[in-house]
Amino acid sequence: MSIEAILEKIDADQPAALERLFELLRIQSVSTDPAYADHCVAAADWLVNDLKSLGFEAERRDTPGHPMVVAHGGEGGPHFLFYGHYDVQPVDPVNLWDSPPFEPVLKDTPNGKVISARGANDDKGQLMTFLEALRAWFAVNGKLPCRLTIFLEGEEETGSPSLVPFMKENAGELTADLAMICDTAMWDRETPAISTMLRGMVGVQVTVHAADRDLHSGMYGGAAINPIRVLNRILSDMHDDDGRVTLDGFYDGVHDIPDEVKAQWDGLNFSTEDFLGEVGLSVPAGETGYTALEQTWARPTAEVNGIWGGYTGEGFKTVLPAEAHAKVTFRLVGDQDPDAVVAAFKAHVEASLPADCSASFVEKNGAKATVLPVDATEFTKAHAALSDEWPKPAVFAGCGGSIPIAGLFHEILGMDSLMIGFGQSDDALHSPNEKYDLASFHKGARSWARVLAALT
Amino acid sequence: MSIEAILEKIDADQPAALERLFELLRIQSVSTDPAYADHCVAAADWLVNDLKSLGFEAERRDTPGHPMVVAHGGEGGPHFLFYGHYDVQPVDPVNLWDSPPFEPVLKDTPNGKVISARGANDDKGQLMTFLEALRAWFAVNGKLPCRLTIFLEGEEETGSPSLVPFMKENAGELTADLAMICDTAMWDRETPAISTMLRGMVGVQVTVHAADRDLHSGMYGGAAINPIRVLNRILSDMHDDDGRVTLDGFYDGVHDIPDEVKAQWDGLNFSTEDFLGEVGLSVPAGETGYTALEQTWARPTAEVNGIWGGYTGEGFKTVLPAEAHAKVTFRLVGDQDPDAVVAAFKAHVEASLPADCSASFVEKNGAKATVLPVDATEFTKAHAALSDEWPKPAVFAGCGGSIPIAGLFHEILGMDSLMIGFGQSDDALHSPNEKYDLASFHKGARSWARVLAALT
Repeated sequence: MSIEAILEKIDADQPAALERLFELLRIQSVSTDPAYADHCVAAADWLVNDLKSLGFEAERRDTPGHPMVVAHGGEGGPHFLFYGHYDVQPVDPVNLWDSPPFEPVLKDTPNGKVISARGANDDKGQLMTFLEALRAWFAVNGKLPCRLTIFLEGEEETGSPSLVPFMKENAGELTADLAMICDTAMWDRETPAISTMLRGMVGVQVTVHAADRDLHSGMYGGAAINPIRVLNRILSDMHDDDGRVTLDGFYDGVHDIPDEVKAQWDGLNFSTEDFLGEVGLSVPAGETGYTALEQTWARPTAEVNGIWGGYTGEGFKTVLPAEAHAKVTFRLVGDQDPDAVVAAFKAHVEASLPADCSASFVEKNGAKATVLPVDATEFTKAHAALSDEWPKPAVFAGCGGSIPIAGLFHEILGMDSLMIGFGQSDDALHSPNEKYDLASFHKGARSWARVLAALT
Repeated sequence: MSIEAILEKIDADQPAALERLFELLRIQSVSTDPAYADHCVAAADWLVNDLKSLGFEAERRDTPGHPMVVAHGGEGGPHFLFYGHYDVQPVDPVNLWDSPPFEPVLKDTPNGKVISARGANDDKGQLMTFLEALRAWFAVNGKLPCRLTIFLEGEEETGSPSLVPFMKENAGELTADLAMICDTAMWDRETPAISTMLRGMVGVQVTVHAADRDLHSGMYGGAAINPIRVLNRILSDMHDDDGRVTLDGFYDGVHDIPDEVKAQWDGLNFSTEDFLGEVGLSVPAGETGYTALEQTWARPTAEVNGIWGGYTGEGFKTVLPAEAHAKVTFRLVGDQDPDAVVAAFKAHVEASLPADCSASFVEKNGAKATVLPVDATEFTKAHAALSDEWPKPAVFAGCGGSIPIAGLFHEILGMDSLMIGFGQSDDALHSPNEKYDLASFHKGARSWARVLAALT
């Protein structure tokens, strides 16, 4: 089997590959908003059809939420499972997009051409790199490289409520020797990365209730408790002046960064100035005593992702609202227990409530942090294969984001995950003007072809 | 001139009076939202026509904002100016209304029939009590009781941006011996009130800016500053643990409550339990050491009326937003200077901003507090006239709300204001299910007839 022939096929097939990705990007598969449920089904169907064209037996598998896509193909050799997600984040504020989020276009930038659209990176562009590698392999060799299971979900951006039940019910079908995941970033434009530490995450929405109706701030102001003020105080008290989270027991299970890891990270030439400067910031805002890299890779966080209450329209309305709300998520590291963190947050809220106030909560599925075996054979071989494709050798990296699936694969199916992704730090994930470098899309497919060749 | 004949006319005319009020309530004159500008014009035109039917020379007078209504009529005797406003608050959250806010209906309650609609009290129901008194007077006597100017605005709920320029340009036309205002509440259902202390108000909207785009809380969380967290801290720090406002110089111009006033208020049998219990609360939440009555009548406040930032839709979105916003208003007493209060707030915000953050502000017109001469002849006569109409004698009361117009009449036109209103504490002003007691509407008109008879 000649890897060169496959790489040439990928190169030759680029225009068609891009058109396929654009088709997928045009489907408005926003998972968090029920209004887009039909679009999620359409994205799943599109992927089922595409997988069938690669020789897979592929099916849309409906769930109480958005459907899964499961496909089986190939034979012999090791058995790999590839995971990706076809759902995307909401597009608001839509007025900040330079072009419509669901009308993908190529744009010229100082760093080369980029694909601009919601999901261009996360995760449609990334997952298609794997499928394009398989397509070329299938075209050149008439078969897939080994036994493969493809497992794509549509609820990743909304806490994956259907995932665990589905995995448990179909554990036999989904268990492979190793999972492959394409949902992470490169170290920089020349240096590919294998992610080996991922923060976990858990979320909770809190509502503070006060009076049984909205009140006039003239008639009641001064005597009636304002739930926005109560919520401000609760959230403000969640951090001390050193940026540490004050919740009881929050740091249980958080380990110091080992000296050898610290040394490896120091060798990465990470530029805090560039990392923060790219988004208009300059000073690491987390716990004092840690670098920005440590703050995002190895330290846990408590962040308010949304807050609302009272009158938020044009002009002023002198109201004391009956309720105030916030969405809070925690990034977790080491052995932090998501349930314990949520319990500590709730306890903090309850302990902070003044007379006449109560609180209610909505929880988001949590996932622990994940640490992977960088010295296993597959990781070593994949590292070498990536280093062949890109100008600089691959690095083993941490990752501030949560990819709960990697933890669940370990916990439920006993599989480790090989996480390779081709995102860049300026891809504007979850933001207006999300993009994916055209080079990431093209060389991403070539990278997967090389990794599959090395492991089969 | 027989006051009895006029009161009988008012009684006989009730069904028609109610239908007139319903017509006015059906006009959706929400002033804060530009989408309702045409409805504001319609309300002004409706009032012009109604005033013409009472023998007034009435005109709609356009402004850069919503129009004024100015009418002149009657002759001889003292010259009174009556002020009211035809604009209303927004209706959101509209799903909490038991009936559509712009479809007025009568409802039975344990306290008798009530008129349910946005503006039923504030201020359409209240201002129509004055017009219905004049209508009866005109019908019985063929003329108005004295020289009268009617001055109605459509921007009261949105800070009255056009008011001061209009008053200054038309000062000669608008200056009378005394202003009469119907925009306040009774002491209780049996006891009318003349308001003699009104808190002032000033507002400011603050936006905290951080990164130049929304960020993914996985990739950046821990290293990038979160403007919601900054805003929470800023707003939380605005009060100390005793409920006092911490802004620099905030209490300059706030006077202790005189012992004789304190004694009068203690004699009012004010029930904190009832006042707060009516809205589901029990504990006065303001400055420690003051009663709920003192907290709302004689002490200043700082309140967040609205807050928003990040993702506030369904589900979760792991975003670190670029901005966070709050609308803050201050209720003012004594000689507090609105401009100084806004300056102190801005200074507090600026001093609290960490690295990489900036703030921007939008200001709302401010008004100082107002204190009126309870021992003047007009106040004594009006007090007696009200006491004749209702089961219990009238009281001179404070008022937590701001009626900036009273301060402006004093400042710009040199007029004192006789503030008599027939609202009840459960009228749900600015809230869903706003209402006005049918008895307030009916006996309110009778009250104004008696007051006009006493003063002319």
